[in-house]
Amino acid sequence: MVDKKLAGAGLRGQSAGETSLCTVGQSGSGLTYCGYDVADLAENATFEEVAYLLFNAQLPNQTQLDNYIMQLTALRDLPQALKEVLQRIPADAHPMDVMRTGCSFLGNLEPEVDFNDQHKAANRLLAAFPAIMCYWYKFSHEGVEIDCVTDEASLAGHFLKLLRGRTPSDQHRRVMDVSLILYAEHEFNASTFTARVCASTLSDMYSCITGAIGSLRGPLHGGANEAAMDMIQTFTSPVDAKAKMAEMLANKEKIMGFGHAIYRESDPRNVIIKAWSEKLAKAHGDTSLYDISVACEEFMWDTKKLFCNADFFHASAYHFMGIPTKLFTPIFVCSRLTGWAAHVMEQRSNNRIIRPSADYTGSDLRPVTPISTRK
Amino acid sequence: MVDKKLAGAGLRGQSAGETSLCTVGQSGSGLTYCGYDVADLAENATFEEVAYLLFNAQLPNQTQLDNYIMQLTALRDLPQALKEVLQRIPADAHPMDVMRTGCSFLGNLEPEVDFNDQHKAANRLLAAFPAIMCYWYKFSHEGVEIDCVTDEASLAGHFLKLLRGRTPSDQHRRVMDVSLILYAEHEFNASTFTARVCASTLSDMYSCITGAIGSLRGPLHGGANEAAMDMIQTFTSPVDAKAKMAEMLANKEKIMGFGHAIYRESDPRNVIIKAWSEKLAKAHGDTSLYDISVACEEFMWDTKKLFCNADFFHASAYHFMGIPTKLFTPIFVCSRLTGWAAHVMEQRSNNRIIRPSADYTGSDLRPVTPISTRK
Repeated sequence: MVDKKLAGAGLRGQSAGETSLCTVGQSGSGLTYCGYDVADLAENATFEEVAYLLFNAQLPNQTQLDNYIMQLTALRDLPQALKEVLQRIPADAHPMDVMRTGCSFLGNLEPEVDFNDQHKAANRLLAAFPAIMCYWYKFSHEGVEIDCVTDEASLAGHFLKLLRGRTPSDQHRRVMDVSLILYAEHEFNASTFTARVCASTLSDMYSCITGAIGSLRGPLHGGANEAAMDMIQTFTSPVDAKAKMAEMLANKEKIMGFGHAIYRESDPRNVIIKAWSEKLAKAHGDTSLYDISVACEEFMWDTKKLFCNADFFHASAYHFMGIPTKLFTPIFVCSRLTGWAAHVMEQRSNNRIIRPSADYTGSDLRPVTPISTRK
Repeated sequence: MVDKKLAGAGLRGQSAGETSLCTVGQSGSGLTYCGYDVADLAENATFEEVAYLLFNAQLPNQTQLDNYIMQLTALRDLPQALKEVLQRIPADAHPMDVMRTGCSFLGNLEPEVDFNDQHKAANRLLAAFPAIMCYWYKFSHEGVEIDCVTDEASLAGHFLKLLRGRTPSDQHRRVMDVSLILYAEHEFNASTFTARVCASTLSDMYSCITGAIGSLRGPLHGGANEAAMDMIQTFTSPVDAKAKMAEMLANKEKIMGFGHAIYRESDPRNVIIKAWSEKLAKAHGDTSLYDISVACEEFMWDTKKLFCNADFFHASAYHFMGIPTKLFTPIFVCSRLTGWAAHVMEQRSNNRIIRPSADYTGSDLRPVTPISTRK
């Protein structure tokens, strides 16, 4: 094995292409979609407007938005064969394996035959993902076959209603909507880059998204909000949190939800979801998990100068909305799908197959020896 | 839209990491696996030896090989739930969507929970892929539920027996074995790079392979042998082939199976599969498809100085063995899986998340305007 060589590893800091979709750490609060600051979008737009923006490079007017929502609403139900596939996935399966499989299977039934259908394929997945997640979850965990259609206009409300079986509050609907906006797009992260490499072979939309889900599944990428939740649930108070985190640091345990590969000072998404987490805590009537989270934030800043990334306060926010921890990363999929699909479309519009080289570190040329002489 | 900029696009010629698995265009006949020339392996080894080599960095001795074959043989059958999923995929689905879905679904049932299980997961997929492909094909096209177990020792023979329902000839078994060797590994091609990007998030083996299948599905990557078959089947004679190819060139139609992104003079795999195609043609008793293929090769070299790549004579070779054209790329999956999985293991052994940057070409920062004022 060669020595670990980190300089230049992981293509860090190397440009792998062009994009007009996103900047990270360059302007505004630090994250922009098509020139719009994510803070501005989280305050003044809805997730459907953001999806439309990413797919069409401009925000919709009212008529366009109404039509778009109508279109998405009509695409929500799942084919019977897909439901039957989801029924065959056990309750202890990794929820990201479920999302990956649901996406892949749908590609058999409703293939994207022509790139002119790319918006249709992306919208179909956007509309269907909440049902794929919730149908499997409710069937495998509760034995319930849910109706995959709701009367909720927004994807945020639709998801909450599918999961909980009742009409969500305006506040929950809005927080989920903001969360979907915050996770929608983030330049050439590993899952998006996976989608672009796949797209560069001129493969279909379902393959690109399936591959991206597989990459987001990795603990170095998605899953930080789940890990944060698992951690903060073990803390009984702000004081206990700081004591236990000090122990974790002393034991060199990895603490998830802090720091970022690109951002150096702060993650612009944190202040937004943190504010919502506080509001949810108050509405919930028990703010302890929020208070614990704030203690964690203070501790990590004071001791390590590490800031909360987008994931950390998502943990408490989702928890206050009654979302099972194992669905946190699948919700990420429901959101980031918009960025992935937009990058697929962009890659196709100016494509060259992504095929890098490698530095060879292996054996010199050697002859195949007869098997009887091998040790 | 920005102007098309090809210099440096697709990471061409840029190193994206290290590998000890493969060289392309550097030594021997032009392609080496772990230091062994592919021509040497195709002459003096079996596909199981090559798989063992890629997974363990050395060729097996007889005991190791016997144990490995026994292990693979025991892993061939499919779980009932996976069969039921394959039954729900229609006959007109893209066969690569079937492979992608079969792989993804199996990951739900038999997850790779720990990287210590990575060999087990790779071997499971290696053993199960022929059955995934053939079970779906026979069920959807002929209404037959095949037995997924055979008495064939080699994967090559196992696949041929599953597909055709009878014991293959020694020659067919050997040609399929050589074909699997030739397609097993090819450095940082797009599907392998997809697997490595996914692996770099520390995702599981099934996610990495599922993503790679999605990339191989693209017409710029896998599928050239199918396209070559579709073309040569329309030619009635060597003379007809040359006349029609001249027309195709005049019409600027793309001709598949020629040239290569890395090789400049020839593809070392072509001479090997071409020789087998000729032998199969003679055994078949009708050499016309082989003669037509030779005419195509002469024509493309004489007019465009383009050489046959690995795919071109695979078309006639597979055809002589009675393999339906739509299964050509899925066979590629059954072989390349070994390279993909070996790269996943290598990436994990010295990992940094693959997260490149991008050049921003989009809009400057702009405010979200009220929807009522948007045009």
